Amino acid sequence: MATKEGLRPGGRSARVQESIHSAVRALLEEQERSTVTVPQIAARAGVTPSTIYRRWGDLSVLLADVALARMRPDSEPANTGSLRGDLRAWGEQYLDEMSSELGRNLLRDVQCSSTPGFCVAIIGAQLQTILDRYPDQPLPSVDRLINLISAPTVFRVLFSAAPLEVEELHRLIEIALTH
Amino acid sequence: MATKEGLRPGGRSARVQESIHSAVRALLEEQERSTVTVPQIAARAGVTPSTIYRRWGDLSVLLADVALARMRPDSEPANTGSLRGDLRAWGEQYLDEMSSELGRNLLRDVQCSSTPGFCVAIIGAQLQTILDRYPDQPLPSVDRLINLISAPTVFRVLFSAAPLEVEELHRLIEIALTH
Repeated sequence: MATKEGLRPGGRSARVQESIHSAVRALLEEQERSTVTVPQIAARAGVTPSTIYRRWGDLSVLLADVALARMRPDSEPANTGSLRGDLRAWGEQYLDEMSSELGRNLLRDVQCSSTPGFCVAIIGAQLQTILDRYPDQPLPSVDRLINLISAPTVFRVLFSAAPLEVEELHRLIEIALTH
Repeated sequence: MATKEGLRPGGRSARVQESIHSAVRALLEEQERSTVTVPQIAARAGVTPSTIYRRWGDLSVLLADVALARMRPDSEPANTGSLRGDLRAWGEQYLDEMSSELGRNLLRDVQCSSTPGFCVAIIGAQLQTILDRYPDQPLPSVDRLINLISAPTVFRVLFSAAPLEVEELHRLIEIALTH
């Protein structure tokens, strides 16, 4: 994109992307997601609609891009001093975030991304950070933690009438710690 | 709908629904999902587009409805003579189906349904059928089985670059059998 957008890669191009992302975030707070349009986003961001179409192809790809960026946590997982405590703190926050209206929409949008697998990479990096704090004890694999913590949390948000219960989350963490 | 559609509830109305569902299934086999339109479906089903809009509101709701109907299994879970065997057979088939292109699209479409929670009800009924075959042994709950088998399978299809491995599926079933 840099050659198309200007002489300074990461300069104008990055600023345009940021203003479009923040226009999307602002509009999603003000109105129903299904009513947001590309011309609206363009007007808010101060670009032409064709800038958006050229870069993202269509609205669902742009929404997915914004959703992926929002999924990136802005802080390290809480350090409680124990593996069990860290996993519970992380799991409870993840459950809270994903069960919210915003979380549910992010999960749906991300699936339209060209790289939905990036989701697992983000979560995996967070869980690895936790595991790295406890090198002297037997540890579950990151994949196992994803299967036992993230997967039931997200599956219940998307396909069940009720979210995962915190008690079941804790039991699944105990299972992860003993296998 | 019955009063709007005619005098025989489940008569004309049910036939119209079935012809529209089968038009959708046929079109999805012939062309890219993103290119299917309501007028095309209407033409194939021999109804007017307004019949579809009146009943489903928009295309995503109709696709969700067709997806939910396809998720309904057309046979009982295989009976292998053991709980472990039945869960493995069911889990492997579920993994195969959901990891396919068709399965992935069904999972995405179902999320636009007004009752995505119905998904868990369908899966739960299948797993309960298996559990009911073994009344004399300690049994995991249906919810636990969904969390350990369905959730990681679906989560990996939607958010990971690679599907759940069969070996991990088997290990998760062992965990379910011992907790």
